[in-house]
Amino acid sequence: MEGVDHLADERKKAEFNVEAMKIVWAGSQHNLEVSNRISKLVADDPAFRKDDRTMLPRKELFKNTLRKAAYAWKRINELRLSEEEASKLRFYVDETAYTDLHWGMFIPAIKGQGTDEQQRKWLPLAYKMQIIGCYAQTELGHGSNVQGLETTATFDPHTDEFVIHSPTLTSSKWWPGGLGKVSTHAVTYARLIIDGKDHGVHGFIVQLRSLEDHRPLPGITVGDIGMKFGNGAYNTMDNGVLRFDHVRIPRNQMLMKVSQVTREGKYKQSDVPRQLVYGTMVYVRQRIVADASCYLSRAVCIATRYSAVRRQFGSQNGGPETQVIDYKTQQSRLFPLLASAYAFRFVGEWLEWLYTDVMQRLQANDFSTLPEAHACTAGLKSLTTSVTADGIEECRKLCGGHGYLCTSGLPELFAVYVPACTYEGDNIVLLLQVARFLMKTVSQIGTGKQPVGTIAYMGRIEHLMQCRCNVQRGFAELSADLVEAAVAHCQLIVVSKFIEKLQQDIPGEGVKQQLEALCGIYYLSLLHKHQGDFLATSYLTPKQSALANDQLRALYSKVRPNAIALVDAFNYSDHFLSSILGRYDGNVYPKLYEAAWKDPLNESVVPDGYHEYVRPLLKQQLHTARL
Amino acid sequence: MEGVDHLADERKKAEFNVEAMKIVWAGSQHNLEVSNRISKLVADDPAFRKDDRTMLPRKELFKNTLRKAAYAWKRINELRLSEEEASKLRFYVDETAYTDLHWGMFIPAIKGQGTDEQQRKWLPLAYKMQIIGCYAQTELGHGSNVQGLETTATFDPHTDEFVIHSPTLTSSKWWPGGLGKVSTHAVTYARLIIDGKDHGVHGFIVQLRSLEDHRPLPGITVGDIGMKFGNGAYNTMDNGVLRFDHVRIPRNQMLMKVSQVTREGKYKQSDVPRQLVYGTMVYVRQRIVADASCYLSRAVCIATRYSAVRRQFGSQNGGPETQVIDYKTQQSRLFPLLASAYAFRFVGEWLEWLYTDVMQRLQANDFSTLPEAHACTAGLKSLTTSVTADGIEECRKLCGGHGYLCTSGLPELFAVYVPACTYEGDNIVLLLQVARFLMKTVSQIGTGKQPVGTIAYMGRIEHLMQCRCNVQRGFAELSADLVEAAVAHCQLIVVSKFIEKLQQDIPGEGVKQQLEALCGIYYLSLLHKHQGDFLATSYLTPKQSALANDQLRALYSKVRPNAIALVDAFNYSDHFLSSILGRYDGNVYPKLYEAAWKDPLNESVVPDGYHEYVRPLLKQQLHTARL
Ligand SMILES: Cc1cc2nc3c(=O)[nH]c(=O)nc-3n(C[C@H](O)[C@H](O)[C@H](O)COP(=O)(O)OP(=O)(O)OC[C@H]3O[C@@H](n4cnc5c(N)ncnc54)[C@H](O)[C@@H]3O)c2cc1C
Ligand SMILES: Cc1cc2nc3c(=O)[nH]c(=O)nc-3n(C[C@H](O)[C@H](O)[C@H](O)COP(=O)(O)OP(=O)(O)OC[C@H]3O[C@@H](n4cnc5c(N)ncnc54)[C@H](O)[C@@H]3O)c2cc1C
Ligand SMILES: [Ca+2]
Repeated sequence: MEGVDHLADERKKAEFNVEAMKIVWAGSQHNLEVSNRISKLVADDPAFRKDDRTMLPRKELFKNTLRKAAYAWKRINELRLSEEEASKLRFYVDETAYTDLHWGMFIPAIKGQGTDEQQRKWLPLAYKMQIIGCYAQTELGHGSNVQGLETTATFDPHTDEFVIHSPTLTSSKWWPGGLGKVSTHAVTYARLIIDGKDHGVHGFIVQLRSLEDHRPLPGITVGDIGMKFGNGAYNTMDNGVLRFDHVRIPRNQMLMKVSQVTREGKYKQSDVPRQLVYGTMVYVRQRIVADASCYLSRAVCIATRYSAVRRQFGSQNGGPETQVIDYKTQQSRLFPLLASAYAFRFVGEWLEWLYTDVMQRLQANDFSTLPEAHACTAGLKSLTTSVTADGIEECRKLCGGHGYLCTSGLPELFAVYVPACTYEGDNIVLLLQVARFLMKTVSQIGTGKQPVGTIAYMGRIEHLMQCRCNVQRGFAELSADLVEAAVAHCQLIVVSKFIEKLQQDIPGEGVKQQLEALCGIYYLSLLHKHQGDFLATSYLTPKQSALANDQLRALYSKVRPNAIALVDAFNYSDHFLSSILGRYDGNVYPKLYEAAWKDPLNESVVPDGYHEYVRPLLKQQLHTARL
Repeated sequence: MEGVDHLADERKKAEFNVEAMKIVWAGSQHNLEVSNRISKLVADDPAFRKDDRTMLPRKELFKNTLRKAAYAWKRINELRLSEEEASKLRFYVDETAYTDLHWGMFIPAIKGQGTDEQQRKWLPLAYKMQIIGCYAQTELGHGSNVQGLETTATFDPHTDEFVIHSPTLTSSKWWPGGLGKVSTHAVTYARLIIDGKDHGVHGFIVQLRSLEDHRPLPGITVGDIGMKFGNGAYNTMDNGVLRFDHVRIPRNQMLMKVSQVTREGKYKQSDVPRQLVYGTMVYVRQRIVADASCYLSRAVCIATRYSAVRRQFGSQNGGPETQVIDYKTQQSRLFPLLASAYAFRFVGEWLEWLYTDVMQRLQANDFSTLPEAHACTAGLKSLTTSVTADGIEECRKLCGGHGYLCTSGLPELFAVYVPACTYEGDNIVLLLQVARFLMKTVSQIGTGKQPVGTIAYMGRIEHLMQCRCNVQRGFAELSADLVEAAVAHCQLIVVSKFIEKLQQDIPGEGVKQQLEALCGIYYLSLLHKHQGDFLATSYLTPKQSALANDQLRALYSKVRPNAIALVDAFNYSDHFLSSILGRYDGNVYPKLYEAAWKDPLNESVVPDGYHEYVRPLLKQQLHTARL
């Protein structure tokens, strides 16, 4: 049955132009073209095979990742790919690796925090990968509280050097990706000490390994921190541990864009605005929001296709059973996630714009929108990653038992994605920052300062001014409730950006109608989930809330015939999805059956261990067996 | 610092008698004594070591499991352990294995569905493990819909045999644990065909492998279905695939307790009540509810201890930072799970009673409580496993970055537990059954039939009678909302059994007070989460709902000083927890550091693959490299 499209009937049902939707999802015709070209390049190249990933032991897995990373780099150079194409290629290779940190954190940190001179020295080396860098901030004892880091960088005026040192066990660097086995350099965060005075945490470029034989330099202890969640997943990454024993670096390896140490050991601020460093953070978090829509849409694509293939119950007169996607319970779990994937895509586009806008303002010394931009990216990072992680797992459950097999693609997708809820800011810690921003906004209502942008709506809520309390004590005590408020605020941003998107001109037959239905599903499902908040504040009556729920069900029926086409619009190749349940052609069962036999356990019919541990048991001869 | 108890101060704060609480948790002094003894036996025996589990490739992992299972059986025999002790030993060995299915499904199926004669023949073999059995129901194409299974068992009157056959690819057995590599026999479910007539699905004992050399018997194709979620996790189990090519078994290997096939090929019901077979299902699901409290409490124990060890932010004048357990956000995520662990323990005890009660009634031909018992076990299986799976993952997130390391114990705990949401009935499918039961109860209100037991409250809701609709069509359309109602019904059962428990005499200073606080946290946190339902129906006013939330926060403060002691009361050894973050002594950081170096990647300082894939890249020599 190779070549048969088992989902052809589903695709015929679609009431919109799928090709036009692909452009909407990709962001532009150009993006779509690049994605098509690069994803095919990766999928067609057996060197990028990944279906064996969950079966490899750690060392082989890791070695294989080193191979792929080198090969990818080779191809990027051979084909003279642009930066855009190169990053797309890494995206489609779809394997977490040291290169993520090199390109995604090391280089941006130098760009964001290094002086022009430092950039001129280090960036060309990094761009050519003559050095490989990581981002060493977190320690065993401190992650969220960056200001509490313990590693020290003490200025030695005699030699014009900094002495980098790990004074305690808990000051050991712990977690940085790429650190454990590969990086030659690290942007290392440490407390700057001059003449006994602590100037707080600053970034330093520290070489870790010899460029000749890759051995750690004197005073450096470095290694991998061990297995993480999942089989392949993040275990392709060498998250590392690092200790410094009085390691010396030249003074000019402190990143000095915003503050500097002079030859005489004077600490001073440069004339570059401090706030510029927040730009990097906004940039990284905005990327994470964009990633969320990728990961969620992948899971949704798998679960949607399989839900149309899978039939269970409901056969009438010996006819076929019901496709599980036709059950309203399945729809009520799946379609809000489908809607969320689209919603996150559009809010991600908006964040990209926001980042550009903020950076332009910062360059022009306009800091007015920075707090809002910071709150938006922190909050949306938290919201989208939490929903995506939970959503991937829900998609796995939507596939019943078969979702638990690695060949479904979903266990690995979850395991590799879920730390996004923790890194770049623990999601609860981030929401507390948003909550603080909201409280500050509320406290300023009536002072004449009109809230604008995503908080403009607060200007209309005068009654909030009546509830004044001891903010400091009250905040801690009510923090759990404030986190809920912060989530609601972020959901409002997502909804409003979705609606703004729909106000634009969107070409393609039926495309806008589908997006309108998805937008409705997004906000009505949130309304249903949080109806308590709307009822408690009398924003809705119970009757209205029930009507909203009816409307939500009606939208499920509207989306149902378009579901397969809506996930086709994500334009993912089978290689990228790497899920038998999510195959484009829906040919699930024969392929599941085929794949099973590849497990190492099936190399022999009688398993290794039978003679020692099974036969003596069956034969009642355990008492003499050596176990 | 070995030997120092870093949590000693926390333990001093406890306001109740921990030893007395241990008895409450264990169920009795006797249970506690057995648990103590057996858990120590396992923990002290290096043969049961499990800290390397996430690092082993599949074949080694599996072989190691075979070894442990044989060794456990050897010890059980050497020490002449009772059945109770033996099952505790398997519990503390804490490694999913073929023996789970042998003892937990194969034997109960023969007991529940076999005639006396069949039991006399097969059970002694099984009890001595001279044969090893599994439970082969699910197929590639059918899991939830058991009645749709495709495997056939055709009676051949000429030879007095059944011919077991897999007519399609989707009829391949798929998932049964222990099937892939170990089982010699399977209770196999197949459609009984006599003379062309289909009598529906029945159970058959089928031998799969030679007892001499373990090779599959003629006509049998069998293997493992491949990697599943997580590293060690469920990959110690050989979930299998199985195809039959006209395999013949004697007629007396059909399990004939309730229906029989005679020598002449006549199909008839025995005089044993059909309903008895449901007993097995109630039994198995009741065990799953008991397991839920074990798994959830393990995760909660780890997260609670680590939350007391972990400090982040809030240092005043250079003093220590705040323990993260003191943050209200942390408490609002953690304490409801702590409360749920206790709640599930008590509802599990009640279910155990319910099972015994139902079985006694069935023996006496009293089927009146069976529908309710069925709904209770189905619903509570669904509720407790969903909360536990989500709860383990929440506990992992509560540990920040370090929770993502396998040495935290939490990734594996999640991966090995989460299929409980799917096996023994997909949780949504089960809730739909509960919903159907509730609808039926509602439809009978006013007919004179008074609801009793867990549905007695429905007799008091007369207004429900006013909402009549087309049940068949309405049910499908509203099924998502009905599932929410079914969940609420199950939560009510849990709450009421917790309250009933508190009405008993509970010895030990302060013990009852702590349980009362936990009970309050359990129902108030549910009330907060579902306030919309209470407000929409005017069961609560917004003001009352807000007051309830204040009360919830007050209870968090009350439980806080007792938190460590409340998890100590679970009485888990460090071996059983196998979590560095959850260590009894709180000595987290040095042990995390130590453990990291054991990863295979750290066997060499310069990683395997450096010369082929890293050096050429750094040296710009990739163009000539063979990758
Ligand atoms: C896969 C992965 C990759 C990583 N890569 C890197 C890397 O490349 N470089 C690097 O430097 N780091 C890296 N990290 C580390 C990561 O940045 C930290 O783990 C993250 O910042 C969370 O900090 P933490 O682990 O200290 O969590 P903690 O702060 O210890 O969190 C524990 C708990 O405390 C709570 N909590 C903490 N503070 C507060 C508060 N003030 N109020 C209320 N609750 C609070 C949290 O919500 C959480 O529930 C990585 C981590 C992972 C998992
Ligand atoms: C680790 C593991 C161990 C197992 N061990 C065994 C074993 O030892 N022996 C054995 O025989 N089997 C075993 N199984 C199989 C298991 O019993 C089935 O996977 C389970 O019954 C779920 O069925 P399914 O996979 O067909 O899910 P499906 O029914 O295909 O579920 C897919 C989706 O459809 C939905 N759905 C299905 N029917 C309906 C409906 N009527 N209305 C609304 N929604 C519906 C579900 O909610 C789910 O979202 C095991 C499975 C696992 C994961
Ligand atoms: Ca709710």
